[in-house]
Amino acid sequence: MAFDVGIDIGGTNIKLGLVDARGKVVARRRLDTRASLGPKKALARVAAAIDELRAGRRVSSVGVGIAGLVDQEHGVVRVPPNLPGWHGFGVKRALESMTGLPVWCSNDADVVTLGEWLHGAGRGCDNLFCLTLGTGCGGGAIVHGRLLLGANHAAGELGHVVVQADGPDCRCGGRGCVERFVGARYVVQRAKQAARRQARRLRVHRNQMSFLGDAQERLTLLYELAGPRLSRLDTVLLGRAARKGDKVALAAVEETGYYLGLGLVSVIALLDPERVIIGGGVSGLGRPLLSAVRRTVLSRGQIFTGRRLEFVFAELGNDAGIVGAARLGRWLRRWL
Amino acid sequence: MAFDVGIDIGGTNIKLGLVDARGKVVARRRLDTRASLGPKKALARVAAAIDELRAGRRVSSVGVGIAGLVDQEHGVVRVPPNLPGWHGFGVKRALESMTGLPVWCSNDADVVTLGEWLHGAGRGCDNLFCLTLGTGCGGGAIVHGRLLLGANHAAGELGHVVVQADGPDCRCGGRGCVERFVGARYVVQRAKQAARRQARRLRVHRNQMSFLGDAQERLTLLYELAGPRLSRLDTVLLGRAARKGDKVALAAVEETGYYLGLGLVSVIALLDPERVIIGGGVSGLGRPLLSAVRRTVLSRGQIFTGRRLEFVFAELGNDAGIVGAARLGRWLRRWL
Repeated sequence: MAFDVGIDIGGTNIKLGLVDARGKVVARRRLDTRASLGPKKALARVAAAIDELRAGRRVSSVGVGIAGLVDQEHGVVRVPPNLPGWHGFGVKRALESMTGLPVWCSNDADVVTLGEWLHGAGRGCDNLFCLTLGTGCGGGAIVHGRLLLGANHAAGELGHVVVQADGPDCRCGGRGCVERFVGARYVVQRAKQAARRQARRLRVHRNQMSFLGDAQERLTLLYELAGPRLSRLDTVLLGRAARKGDKVALAAVEETGYYLGLGLVSVIALLDPERVIIGGGVSGLGRPLLSAVRRTVLSRGQIFTGRRLEFVFAELGNDAGIVGAARLGRWLRRWL
Repeated sequence: MAFDVGIDIGGTNIKLGLVDARGKVVARRRLDTRASLGPKKALARVAAAIDELRAGRRVSSVGVGIAGLVDQEHGVVRVPPNLPGWHGFGVKRALESMTGLPVWCSNDADVVTLGEWLHGAGRGCDNLFCLTLGTGCGGGAIVHGRLLLGANHAAGELGHVVVQADGPDCRCGGRGCVERFVGARYVVQRAKQAARRQARRLRVHRNQMSFLGDAQERLTLLYELAGPRLSRLDTVLLGRAARKGDKVALAAVEETGYYLGLGLVSVIALLDPERVIIGGGVSGLGRPLLSAVRRTVLSRGQIFTGRRLEFVFAELGNDAGIVGAARLGRWLRRWL
């Protein structure tokens, strides 16, 4: 049985896995990226880890997923947001000479899409859109049974679809982009504001010594979970509160689903996928997020009524990057 | 030499053409649609016109472009906006039995895209987006050298990409869709409002007997061109005034380019085409439209800087529908 190595290079960690033909990770390693030392030293440690992983087994290829614009043909990384020192570096060539194995590189969101398509929530589906919701908001598409690359290998960028013409400034230089509403930090920011507004309102109520029975609104759980200044609040705690039915948390999750849903209206209008797969850390917001997304898409995109179209969560979790990267060699070769 | 017949079915007219292998229309016919009489009678007249056109020449296939959702596999039309009586009608089967020729059907915007790709402004381009700007706003995409169909044969719907979350109601049931800003009637509506605002302002100035030299603002040409109540104003007259440098007209054209540009930011983020082709009647607004589109896309989508990406006008004009439809037989067969 032949294996492939999948590598998920992030700003903090590098995750490697030996992946079998069925998409199972049979062995894995995790390294510190040490981004400041540059790509050569990191890849030398990666090559050593590959040697450990492959010991005695037949490995066909190595695949690398990395954030940023990736020239898949030459395996060169451009403008990687978390690894500034890697800009313009030829990952493919360096790693091939270190390992003696064929190496393929792609954008991290495309790799996750490939993984979910082949071994996760996208199996058997020729037209799908897969989005990863975390610090940023990335995406990838399978159309007609192949990964949508685009003319500049930059397709699927859901994060910078515009949903609010005059919306708030986004770090990309645009305004009102999807990511500016659904990126983890903005979700948390809005939840904090809502919690503080509620706390203020309750305080005013008490000061006015309101005797109304229905004024017995409970203070949001978020203070209990994230501390009196909400300093520990993140999307995990927000999701936990929402699942417990906390109204402030639920409203924040729903607002996130609303903006994500608006972005997906554009995805569906343009790409017409039959399945939308939601992955990444923020997808931990769970069912309330999914139903808000679905509600928004179906109410705003009434032209989609009756279509083959479903919304599901990703299945591979943190392994999606490794599993998808391991499949690059097999698939990119055909497509480039 | 073999020919194909291309048919462009609209709510008012049906245009047919005999198209040679190079995409040249060598003979043509135009029929009234007489929509109220239903599809059978119309197609019988179409079949008779095909017989006239083909006289003595070898015809390989017939292609039909029609507004609405078209099941390309079975050649069935669904929800055609201008031909309500045609909903669910099997155009392919009916026309095949009438003509004895293989018939292929597709959405009108997809047909135009195919035409421009093979014989117009999209030649030699594997990844492009083609939009038709008229009463509505449609679009089609070529990705990896083939027409993007989508899971429901409904891809490329630029008109219902959302650009303003809380924007005005669109006839599709959504809000803030591209079409709600750039559809011909809305462009004209905004231009009229702007002209009336200017006229009011100038009147107030005169009443105040302003002696300021720079108050000598000229009344927009639109009144001269479209009558004192602007009742004749359409996008052709608007474009004419804009080309003459009329400020009110230019502002209206630029606003149209701005909203279209915002929609295209989403198209480019998701599909990453190397060429965007702008066609349809409203594209007669000309250069000022194109430069407003380009300016918006490059300022809002700074992540696109340095990409292979250009904006051009369509080349086939009113023939695009006929020429593209004539090519359906050759290409859809491979893709379905």
